[in-house]
Amino acid sequence: MATSTSSERDTRELLVELLRVFYGKGWVSGTGGGISGPADDGGLLLAPTGVHKERIQPDEFFTVDPADGSIRTRPADPALRPSECNSIFCLAVRERAATSVVHSHALSAVLAGDLAAAASSDHVAIRDLEMLKGIRGVGNRDTHLLPVIRNTPRESELVEQLTGVLADPRFASSFAVIVADHGAYIWGADVWEAKRHTEVYHFLFEAVVARRDRADRRRDQP
Amino acid sequence: MATSTSSERDTRELLVELLRVFYGKGWVSGTGGGISGPADDGGLLLAPTGVHKERIQPDEFFTVDPADGSIRTRPADPALRPSECNSIFCLAVRERAATSVVHSHALSAVLAGDLAAAASSDHVAIRDLEMLKGIRGVGNRDTHLLPVIRNTPRESELVEQLTGVLADPRFASSFAVIVADHGAYIWGADVWEAKRHTEVYHFLFEAVVARRDRADRRRDQP
Amino acid sequence: MATSTSSERDTRELLVELLRVFYGKGWVSGTGGGISGPADDGGLLLAPTGVHKERIQPDEFFTVDPADGSIRTRPADPALRPSECNSIFCLAVRERAATSVVHSHALSAVLAGDLAAAASSDHVAIRDLEMLKGIRGVGNRDTHLLPVIRNTPRESELVEQLTGVLADPRFASSFAVIVADHGAYIWGADVWEAKRHTEVYHFLFEAVVARRDRADRRRDQP
Amino acid sequence: MATSTSSERDTRELLVELLRVFYGKGWVSGTGGGISGPADDGGLLLAPTGVHKERIQPDEFFTVDPADGSIRTRPADPALRPSECNSIFCLAVRERAATSVVHSHALSAVLAGDLAAAASSDHVAIRDLEMLKGIRGVGNRDTHLLPVIRNTPRESELVEQLTGVLADPRFASSFAVIVADHGAYIWGADVWEAKRHTEVYHFLFEAVVARRDRADRRRDQP
Repeated sequence: MATSTSSERDTRELLVELLRVFYGKGWVSGTGGGISGPADDGGLLLAPTGVHKERIQPDEFFTVDPADGSIRTRPADPALRPSECNSIFCLAVRERAATSVVHSHALSAVLAGDLAAAASSDHVAIRDLEMLKGIRGVGNRDTHLLPVIRNTPRESELVEQLTGVLADPRFASSFAVIVADHGAYIWGADVWEAKRHTEVYHFLFEAVVARRDRADRRRDQP
Repeated sequence: MATSTSSERDTRELLVELLRVFYGKGWVSGTGGGISGPADDGGLLLAPTGVHKERIQPDEFFTVDPADGSIRTRPADPALRPSECNSIFCLAVRERAATSVVHSHALSAVLAGDLAAAASSDHVAIRDLEMLKGIRGVGNRDTHLLPVIRNTPRESELVEQLTGVLADPRFASSFAVIVADHGAYIWGADVWEAKRHTEVYHFLFEAVVARRDRADRRRDQP
Repeated sequence: MATSTSSERDTRELLVELLRVFYGKGWVSGTGGGISGPADDGGLLLAPTGVHKERIQPDEFFTVDPADGSIRTRPADPALRPSECNSIFCLAVRERAATSVVHSHALSAVLAGDLAAAASSDHVAIRDLEMLKGIRGVGNRDTHLLPVIRNTPRESELVEQLTGVLADPRFASSFAVIVADHGAYIWGADVWEAKRHTEVYHFLFEAVVARRDRADRRRDQP
Repeated sequence: MATSTSSERDTRELLVELLRVFYGKGWVSGTGGGISGPADDGGLLLAPTGVHKERIQPDEFFTVDPADGSIRTRPADPALRPSECNSIFCLAVRERAATSVVHSHALSAVLAGDLAAAASSDHVAIRDLEMLKGIRGVGNRDTHLLPVIRNTPRESELVEQLTGVLADPRFASSFAVIVADHGAYIWGADVWEAKRHTEVYHFLFEAVVARRDRADRRRDQP
């Protein structure tokens, strides 16, 4: 088991493999969703947009400068364009010392975001789940606040909201943000932590939705 | 990552692979469901009927003339007959400039169609989902109307209804039609777009059903 | 695509492969569930009992005489014993001209059986589903009656009930029986038809359960 | 089909394979969950903690003394630490003559544990399911009591509770314990029995949750 990636070549192959795994789980589909990871030069490997993510090849990533999102290198295929999530990815990288960010289009993320909307809240509170320990720095006795931001047609407005969330002390322990009606961004210090956080948060999305459904069902009862 | 198919041989192999993927997701099963794609001569590659779709081989497709559905070439096995969806596929190809049509037997398509029946409506309205952007020409602020037609024992009656739907301006942006109690037809300009639309629409089917269930559950509450 | 099996060797390999597919779908698990198919000598290939079905090898089947269930040949491993479903399998083979029977331990079969129990009925009525056409001789306008028998600690009592069901004209078109709290037996004229029927009936199990849940949820509403 | 493992090398490979299977089913994820099995020297093979379990290699297990959990051998990678479940695993091995213990992080285990909490009970009663026969010594007419213990931040408190459960005659026939909000520990006399029990108990978790949901839904009805 490789727990660390020793080179950009390994990172590219791991990102490609994870996209296949996430496609199998329904977290990326319909060309939606994506992943980024560290390039050897300090840049960010970024998947192209509008492509079937489970079919990306290791040499098809862009590298961008996380300081401003500018493109450093591009894949050979001139038809490929960098992911629209570029600014979001770079923001998480800069503000949270992440080197890898996953963009999920999972239905469970959307349904978890619906819980916040139903409660007119800007977050989902997660508690009483051992799986919380899978998030760095979080314990299973903690109530973990997961921020939910509005979906917008323009990426710039997402960046603005995410900037606010990342500065909000209530969300200091979060490695993810739900975008309502859309999905989630989940990050980690390296690709392996981003993978772990991605699996953990999807478990948490499913758990809070299932428990909420159950609570609603039981509340109906006389 | 091949984003375009360069020859009919590639298309045949891609169609075969997608049938395996769709079988794994439960969108084709029990010999139900299917796929078609472009032949090099302008015809339509059509899977045979009554066979286990995830096991079709590249040389087992028919080619038909999309103008009238007449058979141009047949696979070597004389026992194979062309898909019963032939006229439907050809209709979508002619009326919407599609070259690839997927026929889904997914339960989520049936359950989404039930929502229209429950509301005595001829469509399902889909909104507030980023995944809508995965449909060509549709934005995430749009309300997307997905037509639902009645299931009929005779294919000719399906064709008649679909003809009406394709001429209906309310459904001009739709690349799919749900057949109640049955499944869905989903198309695209090429096989890759048909794949993307297939994944997007199945996400949308699942999302509207889950949200409707949740709304029904909460409406029970005092 | 092989639509017919040309020899017992092929049949054994197909049975082994289908057990892996069914394990992946959760229809056989925990050593429960199984499959049988035709041997070249007119006997029935029968999986051993108490083993992890997705790991069976082609040379590990028994062959039994469907007339009385007596063992004709056994696998080399003396620890293996024939499936406890032997008499049930042989009964379906004799009474319905089946040569292949699948025994499912799917949760969806159990939940579909619960619907009959809740209605104090001995069957589940299935209608308004195109997938019904996947059952030989059944149309999508038919109401298909799927028998449900009680689970019993003794196989002989299952045989007795199944004998009654197979003689019941209401169930003449059924290629399956649900055993309440247990699962289902599903058969076909050959292995391919048994596979098709298995996929179709599991779709039907899931569909009737999902529609019943939805109806219950909506009935709550004022 | 290998029904017994003939050497520690085989056991290590089987454990590695099962972790991949369980990851695919969502029973281990996010580095949570694990498995142990018998070493040739009478010790217990133990997966490392904090790693992505589906990627463990056969040479990455620790061996520990089940008498006191002390480490006998360690994998070459000095960064690896033994699973935090060590004491729990050793306890089950000592008290129940198990040689293999699975630690599941499945959502279905958490939701089944919620049923006990909702009923202020220390167990879940499981009945009317043929799959109960997949648990050694249990019949399909039995009511099987599955103990549920509280989750705690400290492993020592889990050990204390589990000690009580294993001494409780009500739970004498159980090969599993649910840890509320966390998952389950499931064991067997050998790895194959632990695998069978793991599949059986997850079926039972899903079944009791689905039946409870259905009962809650119907209770709402006038």
